[in-house]
Amino acid sequence: MTVTQLNRRAFLRAVGATGGAGAMLATMGALGLTQSAEAATREAASYQAPRKSDFTLSGRAAAKVVVLGGGIAGLATAYELGKAGYDCTILEAQNRPGGRNFTVRGGTTTTDLYGTTQTARFSPGQYMNAGPARLAQWMVTLDYCRELGVPIEVFTNVNADAFLYNESAGMTAPARYRAAKADVFGYTTEMLAKLTDQGSLDQQLTASDKERLMEFLKDYGDLGGSLEYTGSTRRGYSVWPGAAGQPGVVAGDVPSASEVFASGVGRYFSFEFEFDQAMLMFQPVGGMDRIPYALATAIGARRIQYGSAVTRITDTEHGVTVAYSRDGRARSIEADFCVSAMPPNILAKVPHNLGSGVQSALEAITPSSAAKIGLEYRSRWWETDYRIYGGITETDLDVTHIWHPSYGFHGERGLLIGYYNTGANADSYAPLTPAQREARAVAAGVKIYGDKYRSELATSFSHHWRQFPHQEAAWHSTPGGPDDPRYKPLTAPTGHVYFAGDWLSYMDAWQHGAFSSARTAVTALHKRALA
Amino acid sequence: MTVTQLNRRAFLRAVGATGGAGAMLATMGALGLTQSAEAATREAASYQAPRKSDFTLSGRAAAKVVVLGGGIAGLATAYELGKAGYDCTILEAQNRPGGRNFTVRGGTTTTDLYGTTQTARFSPGQYMNAGPARLAQWMVTLDYCRELGVPIEVFTNVNADAFLYNESAGMTAPARYRAAKADVFGYTTEMLAKLTDQGSLDQQLTASDKERLMEFLKDYGDLGGSLEYTGSTRRGYSVWPGAAGQPGVVAGDVPSASEVFASGVGRYFSFEFEFDQAMLMFQPVGGMDRIPYALATAIGARRIQYGSAVTRITDTEHGVTVAYSRDGRARSIEADFCVSAMPPNILAKVPHNLGSGVQSALEAITPSSAAKIGLEYRSRWWETDYRIYGGITETDLDVTHIWHPSYGFHGERGLLIGYYNTGANADSYAPLTPAQREARAVAAGVKIYGDKYRSELATSFSHHWRQFPHQEAAWHSTPGGPDDPRYKPLTAPTGHVYFAGDWLSYMDAWQHGAFSSARTAVTALHKRALA
Repeated sequence: MTVTQLNRRAFLRAVGATGGAGAMLATMGALGLTQSAEAATREAASYQAPRKSDFTLSGRAAAKVVVLGGGIAGLATAYELGKAGYDCTILEAQNRPGGRNFTVRGGTTTTDLYGTTQTARFSPGQYMNAGPARLAQWMVTLDYCRELGVPIEVFTNVNADAFLYNESAGMTAPARYRAAKADVFGYTTEMLAKLTDQGSLDQQLTASDKERLMEFLKDYGDLGGSLEYTGSTRRGYSVWPGAAGQPGVVAGDVPSASEVFASGVGRYFSFEFEFDQAMLMFQPVGGMDRIPYALATAIGARRIQYGSAVTRITDTEHGVTVAYSRDGRARSIEADFCVSAMPPNILAKVPHNLGSGVQSALEAITPSSAAKIGLEYRSRWWETDYRIYGGITETDLDVTHIWHPSYGFHGERGLLIGYYNTGANADSYAPLTPAQREARAVAAGVKIYGDKYRSELATSFSHHWRQFPHQEAAWHSTPGGPDDPRYKPLTAPTGHVYFAGDWLSYMDAWQHGAFSSARTAVTALHKRALA
Repeated sequence: MTVTQLNRRAFLRAVGATGGAGAMLATMGALGLTQSAEAATREAASYQAPRKSDFTLSGRAAAKVVVLGGGIAGLATAYELGKAGYDCTILEAQNRPGGRNFTVRGGTTTTDLYGTTQTARFSPGQYMNAGPARLAQWMVTLDYCRELGVPIEVFTNVNADAFLYNESAGMTAPARYRAAKADVFGYTTEMLAKLTDQGSLDQQLTASDKERLMEFLKDYGDLGGSLEYTGSTRRGYSVWPGAAGQPGVVAGDVPSASEVFASGVGRYFSFEFEFDQAMLMFQPVGGMDRIPYALATAIGARRIQYGSAVTRITDTEHGVTVAYSRDGRARSIEADFCVSAMPPNILAKVPHNLGSGVQSALEAITPSSAAKIGLEYRSRWWETDYRIYGGITETDLDVTHIWHPSYGFHGERGLLIGYYNTGANADSYAPLTPAQREARAVAAGVKIYGDKYRSELATSFSHHWRQFPHQEAAWHSTPGGPDDPRYKPLTAPTGHVYFAGDWLSYMDAWQHGAFSSARTAVTALHKRALA
């Protein structure tokens, strides 16, 4: 996620963490390695859902609220306000809840902005999460899964047996993650171990520091007594060990350090350390849209008006009037408050009387492209032929990421994500017909996996967010971050209108951001209603 | 697994992999990073199960075979021979299939060699795998799960949010894996990056090698422009990022490099690179014993005699006679062949006429200790309070490993493995009463997790393999490896008797070894029967 990456770096600089090896021997009090349970849950615990008793005590009545957009932020808003008895109505342009949380199954039909209609022909039980697909353990999204009774299972974000393939580096066959890691860590620890052994760090390290460092390096790099990396069982085996008489054959040949670095495989290793991507990750059993459907059920079907596109927002003296179109007819709804949880790029096209500050803030936020193609196969050949059970293959091809399924292990059929790409790569596939997209994605996969990537293919479905009606973005870039002063008319209410969405959070492109933003809007609105 | 670790190292030396940074710039042909699909499956594909048609063609009849022991190796033997119509009978001393593949649920009762009887009071749906608990993707065990229709799910072997706790290093609170990794990799890459930048590797590296190495190090260590590690969002947050106004607080304080190495947290990082432990790992849904029960069903109940302890093995001119005891009565069975799949330490106590070579080989193989305690809790406080969903907490306490459950996420109750320890640590718990074991394990856990580790505990069950009848070992040490000449009377048939078990493989303590060994015995026996 390049967008959040930028925010994260900027934030890290801002918090100005201290330390560094220059201060290696500085004392820093006790071993400050820990993170307390209280701290870990402080953010989650700080949210207090509105309760019916809040009104009983205040003597006030729950207000009427119109929520624009039935994505995660809009659904969460109505769900949380509903706990206190607010009279909420959600206007959702599409015919399903979830917004970008969108799971494609057999029978799912889409028509994109080019006018191309696709109907997925996936087999029963096969699905692709076209939008969000993974949840980190700390994310509030998991609390909603628990509260709503949505079962979860592991999302296989990293796999030692998945492939790495950098065509531009001259690789003619993929490497296994496990072999690439063994080689990269083997050679880099060999370099540092030898330099340390030769005294290069004697000015910075005490004798015991040095001893502990060497112990770590020898273990981490699987170095021999000569401090040389000469291969390792960690590379995996070309013939796995078995019974007596079958000691196995360690995967070879071991490339030189120069070759390893030239292959560029090491560039993929830090992904699994990112705070939002580190394993273990999770997914709802049966598809990510189990979350919005559970929210919609909890909110109540009568409160959600599908096929309702907002045409005008008017803040009035005592409330809000929202005009919208449904079944070709112009309609209108009045409410005490409005929470707009529409994408900013779509909202920017809706006439309103909220002022130029709101409009220029919305227009400063720019849409980003991302796309996925689901490839259903007649067999799970990646399990039987390659022993790859889940995980992501990383490439420098325009398909970028290839995802193995995290569900249905050992089943008859299976569904790969043949590309999950962003920016220019996604845009390059967008103008193609679905058949052309499939052909191009399959040609890329054949380079890595061989002929079965083509011959076992049953059907495909591709989805491009930038070209998808009512969204026109996979996520958004918010220059300066959501707390930049120019977004003040969005982070604080404008008249009776509140705004919510992942794009108003530090976790854009994540449902956690949408839920967190909705909670913030709900908290502010409820406080005002009680005042 | 310290036992296999030794074998692995010895084997690595034996295969004499070439290379090393001394030969850094040597050309080694094409980028040999790959492992072909053929190679990956060569071992599995090389096994050809016996078929009924084999006898049709040869004109011979399928033989009668007695299999000693209904653990994985014995079950696999009868299952594979059964495919060709062999008349197999399994003699199993216990009243269930599986041997060391043993899943404890509510109602499970054991009596150990001290005479102590325990009955598990676990709630419905809660279980502990007392023996094997995880499967690597390449293991043949997964092929049996597929063939037998045993559903699998991810076993959570590594988790960025699990804890590390080294009391002897002075840690007074646990570290998160993610924070420990950020710090260790941050400081070590800083050291190597600075030395490289200063020219320390200019003799060994070309300019482009150096450039690529620096690029990798900066990314892998999350180093700033000054090449210093100053903390990272990879450490996690004490307050996680949320909506606008909630940028989050990165977990601190960042310890010094000296403190990080003194804490010894880095010693746990190479575990996930081991060829048999790297994620993704898997487990059968509902308990590991779903495998032996599925095998038993496929073999047929009438072919398995439970409660049958072997008392004598006699090789005869044309076959084998096995005496055994069942329901207190001495019995005997005759067969054309025998496959002994009993543990070597138990088999060594059974009288036989197979010669001193067999006996001395059995006695050279020594039993190892391992133990587990299952702690069922009234709540899954590790999920709600610590946001730990699965994974293993590593310690230098005598409990060694604490496992979070890989099933039942978000459920009402959950079961931790409070100790999975081996050798002297397991032996130190063995003589205690179950209540004493629980108290000692809980006291250790409280140091890491706090009071809920005690206050939320519902019930426990502990299992020590060295003290368990008919096993008396968790696994075995085979000095010199299974192909050492002294074990020849076990790896080749002695008379009409064949031997099978994980202890006769390069994967001792793994079901993969038991299955592989059984396949080898089956292949040899079948070839002889057809000759």
